Amino acid sequence: MKALVLAAGLGTRFKSKRPKVVHRILGKPMVWYVVSTLRQAGIQDIGVVVGYKAEEVRDVLGDEVTYLHQRDPKGGTGDAVLSAMEFWKDHEGYLLVVNGDSPLILPETVRNLQRFVHMVEEYEGVKISCAVLTTFLSDPTGYGRVIKEEGTDRILRIVEERDATPEERAVREVNAGLYAFFAPHLKEVLPEVGPSEATGEIYLTEVVSLMTSRGMEVRSFMATDPTEALGVNTRWDLSIAENVLRLRIIRFWSDRGVTFHLPETVWLDPDVTLGEEVEIEPDVTLKGKTKVGPGVRIGRGSYVENASIGEGVTVLPYSVVIGATVEPGATVGPFSHIREGTVVGQKAEIGAFVEVKRSRIGSGVKAKHLAYIGDAEVGEGANIGAGVVTANYDGKKKHKTFIGKGTFVGSNSLLIAPVSLGDESYVAGGSVITKDVPEGALAVSRSPMRLFEGKGRKKLKD
Amino acid sequence: MKALVLAAGLGTRFKSKRPKVVHRILGKPMVWYVVSTLRQAGIQDIGVVVGYKAEEVRDVLGDEVTYLHQRDPKGGTGDAVLSAMEFWKDHEGYLLVVNGDSPLILPETVRNLQRFVHMVEEYEGVKISCAVLTTFLSDPTGYGRVIKEEGTDRILRIVEERDATPEERAVREVNAGLYAFFAPHLKEVLPEVGPSEATGEIYLTEVVSLMTSRGMEVRSFMATDPTEALGVNTRWDLSIAENVLRLRIIRFWSDRGVTFHLPETVWLDPDVTLGEEVEIEPDVTLKGKTKVGPGVRIGRGSYVENASIGEGVTVLPYSVVIGATVEPGATVGPFSHIREGTVVGQKAEIGAFVEVKRSRIGSGVKAKHLAYIGDAEVGEGANIGAGVVTANYDGKKKHKTFIGKGTFVGSNSLLIAPVSLGDESYVAGGSVITKDVPEGALAVSRSPMRLFEGKGRKKLKD
Amino acid sequence: MKALVLAAGLGTRFKSKRPKVVHRILGKPMVWYVVSTLRQAGIQDIGVVVGYKAEEVRDVLGDEVTYLHQRDPKGGTGDAVLSAMEFWKDHEGYLLVVNGDSPLILPETVRNLQRFVHMVEEYEGVKISCAVLTTFLSDPTGYGRVIKEEGTDRILRIVEERDATPEERAVREVNAGLYAFFAPHLKEVLPEVGPSEATGEIYLTEVVSLMTSRGMEVRSFMATDPTEALGVNTRWDLSIAENVLRLRIIRFWSDRGVTFHLPETVWLDPDVTLGEEVEIEPDVTLKGKTKVGPGVRIGRGSYVENASIGEGVTVLPYSVVIGATVEPGATVGPFSHIREGTVVGQKAEIGAFVEVKRSRIGSGVKAKHLAYIGDAEVGEGANIGAGVVTANYDGKKKHKTFIGKGTFVGSNSLLIAPVSLGDESYVAGGSVITKDVPEGALAVSRSPMRLFEGKGRKKLKD
Repeated sequence: MKALVLAAGLGTRFKSKRPKVVHRILGKPMVWYVVSTLRQAGIQDIGVVVGYKAEEVRDVLGDEVTYLHQRDPKGGTGDAVLSAMEFWKDHEGYLLVVNGDSPLILPETVRNLQRFVHMVEEYEGVKISCAVLTTFLSDPTGYGRVIKEEGTDRILRIVEERDATPEERAVREVNAGLYAFFAPHLKEVLPEVGPSEATGEIYLTEVVSLMTSRGMEVRSFMATDPTEALGVNTRWDLSIAENVLRLRIIRFWSDRGVTFHLPETVWLDPDVTLGEEVEIEPDVTLKGKTKVGPGVRIGRGSYVENASIGEGVTVLPYSVVIGATVEPGATVGPFSHIREGTVVGQKAEIGAFVEVKRSRIGSGVKAKHLAYIGDAEVGEGANIGAGVVTANYDGKKKHKTFIGKGTFVGSNSLLIAPVSLGDESYVAGGSVITKDVPEGALAVSRSPMRLFEGKGRKKLKD
Repeated sequence: MKALVLAAGLGTRFKSKRPKVVHRILGKPMVWYVVSTLRQAGIQDIGVVVGYKAEEVRDVLGDEVTYLHQRDPKGGTGDAVLSAMEFWKDHEGYLLVVNGDSPLILPETVRNLQRFVHMVEEYEGVKISCAVLTTFLSDPTGYGRVIKEEGTDRILRIVEERDATPEERAVREVNAGLYAFFAPHLKEVLPEVGPSEATGEIYLTEVVSLMTSRGMEVRSFMATDPTEALGVNTRWDLSIAENVLRLRIIRFWSDRGVTFHLPETVWLDPDVTLGEEVEIEPDVTLKGKTKVGPGVRIGRGSYVENASIGEGVTVLPYSVVIGATVEPGATVGPFSHIREGTVVGQKAEIGAFVEVKRSRIGSGVKAKHLAYIGDAEVGEGANIGAGVVTANYDGKKKHKTFIGKGTFVGSNSLLIAPVSLGDESYVAGGSVITKDVPEGALAVSRSPMRLFEGKGRKKLKD
Repeated sequence: MKALVLAAGLGTRFKSKRPKVVHRILGKPMVWYVVSTLRQAGIQDIGVVVGYKAEEVRDVLGDEVTYLHQRDPKGGTGDAVLSAMEFWKDHEGYLLVVNGDSPLILPETVRNLQRFVHMVEEYEGVKISCAVLTTFLSDPTGYGRVIKEEGTDRILRIVEERDATPEERAVREVNAGLYAFFAPHLKEVLPEVGPSEATGEIYLTEVVSLMTSRGMEVRSFMATDPTEALGVNTRWDLSIAENVLRLRIIRFWSDRGVTFHLPETVWLDPDVTLGEEVEIEPDVTLKGKTKVGPGVRIGRGSYVENASIGEGVTVLPYSVVIGATVEPGATVGPFSHIREGTVVGQKAEIGAFVEVKRSRIGSGVKAKHLAYIGDAEVGEGANIGAGVVTANYDGKKKHKTFIGKGTFVGSNSLLIAPVSLGDESYVAGGSVITKDVPEGALAVSRSPMRLFEGKGRKKLKD
């Protein structure tokens, strides 16, 4: 099969300057889900009808689909399919047509629809001209109603909400926005569809009644899940579609041994992977290509993006970890900010109000409060006191700091990079380190402390 | 029309020392919503029946309504309306009566109800004595049931849950707590309502059957939305009403071009305004008179109150911004704390664990980690290192700090206010600045660093 | 009555190495809720059938129940009850049998079921051999269907989903997993139940049809709430059960005078207690044995565990308070981290990016930004500046810091413990305090500040 994705729409109800289909759901453009579903269902030859700001759609879908430019749109889905005729006019098989704003259709549904068409041909000896994906909704308001020959799967016509009679409106079977057309039949019928009297647009659904009136076979095929029918026409629909996809992903991982608390509050991008016995607290965000190893516990509100979290790591509440690796057994948080290019070593502990950027933190290192570690290498077992800062920027350039194994950096010390502290060296609290400290040495830079009797009270009271 | 709001109730089921109607929904007292709905529907002459802790209701509604004090309450809504008779006894038109604990009634419903009464008079030639707002609930438990003459809109009586027969309990049309009375008819009938045998209270709903028995016309009028009927009798009802109002506000902005992720977790006060293409992540709180410009992205969990966020600003997760202005293109967060009286200039970057209070941060300034800036003016393009503190308080008074354009303040430096750093001056990391630094100068206050070979290891091991 | 809890299951669908019943709901193992419900219903003699990793179940339930080891399990609930026969074979009264994965059964339901059995005997003169807790579900998929003699409460049989005919599947009354057996009758019948043809397991529900066929009386008893029927077979069920229990607890406190905002996002452990007029913002977590006094307001996203929060305390958003006491009128947050062994005194203020551990903070103390206070005693009214750190660890041991009443500790100062600052003493900002400071004294340790004209600009530009 070939497939054609309709992605030319403006989405006026989105009130957006961007094409509707590039708006994102869980970090991926809406149309990405449609194309990804087709690919997962085994369809490689995919055309995408683009129009308004076509380049933005190209940016998200890349080179592996064929773009069909709708240059002079009269409007309507039928017009979009017509304008892409070069893509399918010589095709002797089936053409799937799917709306680019239908991100919830499942790969298994597309696979089953393909099988259905072929099985009807094989076992009933009937060539289906068009199979329409449908579903039953308890509230069908806003959807095209599917009118069928009673007691059969034969569709007579699809009626848009605004054109429906009261009886037709009561029909709960709706058009889910996915069609399998036998291309030669579509080619015969589609050019004859006239513009709508009401809107002047050419509706693809008009093909159905035309086909039926010529004795062609139009059948319904039931969606796996009623949510598949959701077409995203507004930003509110986008929010709903995102929630549906999110809960599908969460359910997937729950079935594979992950415990979720308040799953409805957890954000999980489609490319994230989770190990067994992982425990996810409420309000957690896992984005991008994050990988979470077995037995990890991620505390409430933590925000992890493109990170690798090793086995048995504990991420305490309200930690932000982006573009970093946290090795097995380490503890992060609460309120840690681990940034790009950082590796937190095994069993290391990064605590509250500590930021680490582009640094390698050795195993067993402790940096438990109020510190900034940037462009540093910290040897295993080192202890970084509260208030310690690596001054990695001098106003012009970034420089590196090396801290040896087992080294103790006293609180409120400042390490002015480039600088190196040897293994098992010791920086007294409050020091400013401007030169390298040899292995095992003690470094101090402190002014003598002076006392003035009675003067403190005087400063406070006078 | 005049309107009378019943706000004298104690709300015993709230277990509160405050009057029920001053409990807050999205930061506004419950009764504020009722009065605001009446005003939006064009009603200016509003009376409010107050009783228990009347001054607390006055505090929230101010001087633009008329207060009617219920001095010797016998109890019941009928008694409340009677006790306010001075407000409406000479009124020749309609009197709207609404419960102060019905915050979900929509302005359009009140407008439509007014029109309905006048249109029935004009087109049917019927003077309505009382129109009752009603709605259908799938579960009507707890609500007064509306018993009508079959096949008409004429109400025969309203039956409270506890007095209802099993047949009456099965009725799904309920009293939504808003009435339009033709005042002269109300004046005739209300004084004749006797106290309830069960409770001794005088119920306003008894007026309905009395009117009907005298051949007066009592009609139902359908609410726009079933949620309008919710009366807030418990704190749980308060939580539900808050959720309904919150989602109405979110839906309003969604329709105007704002993308919400997990909208059900977002807090949005009624006075907040949002620009087009704003993107709101989950768990965001926007309170008070916050204004958010176009294209702003607000990260998960951020908490913004009475702030102005300029076009294209990025607020990263878990930032708290209160009483501040963030100018276009600036970046804030994660974990920033921007406090009252602060202006963050264009394209400035305020980062993790940075607090700014009563300060003007120039455009392009960077203060990216662990700093406290209070009572300061920071010139454009200045760089504030990690751990920098402006010591604005000396134990008795607050003082100001001036930092020039393009100035570099090295990490862990302390600026003891009052103090001024000239443009393009440079404070070496770890310095304590006690005197002004001239333009272009370098300031350093550091003790010489001393090294003691082997002594570090000794401190760690012995 | 005696009760037998079936807790031997592996829970293969959990994909877990631990027994299913020790997985936690709101911090308590699932089986804890079952045993706790039985105890609250007045049942003291409780047996627990254990098998797979029995020691983990023992660890959570302790010594107050009797453990019955299922040594050679053939599988199935019937087999589990058989294998525990020593516990009930000589019992002349009723034996409650309940699944260990049914954590939502309510104590009142168990009490009512006990009464029901006795009342039927007393008033109808009928000895019930088995009473089965049932409920009606709108979607009964997956549950055992309860097939009754029409128009009576007599159960004929219980049919598992997979064995049910289409007519039986349409039955909406389901088995809720709690049985009251007259023990002598159970003893007579249970040994005759054969293994299932399909699975080889012995199902307890088979007892029902056997009893009925012998003329014994089997009755249904309706659950108080349909949620009670939820059996936890997957981690997804666990998430749902946690949500149900959570909202029950929240509703309980809401009815007692606590206001919840977005209650569906609030986490509340079963042992937490809340005072009147407490206000809980969204995303708040209250865990363990936390006690919250009257009038406390807890800001969005705050995380409180095993803490005591005194009357009128304000916890601002995103504060983490664990194992600490916050005394009346104090303010904490935003972004405070109050740790184990800390007492924050009355009206003290702990602000943003401040961590306090194992310290006693006196009343009225202010520590408002970026500080670390560990192993310290801070006298009343003291002021701790931004960036202040108590260096409580020297690489080998922890030491204590004493700060006197009304003392002022200037910003970025470092107090090297053990050290003591007298009352009303004053530490100049940026000082490193290595020796005790007498009462009323001023302590300074600062290098002289040196200026180099033009050199700052040179460092920035060259």
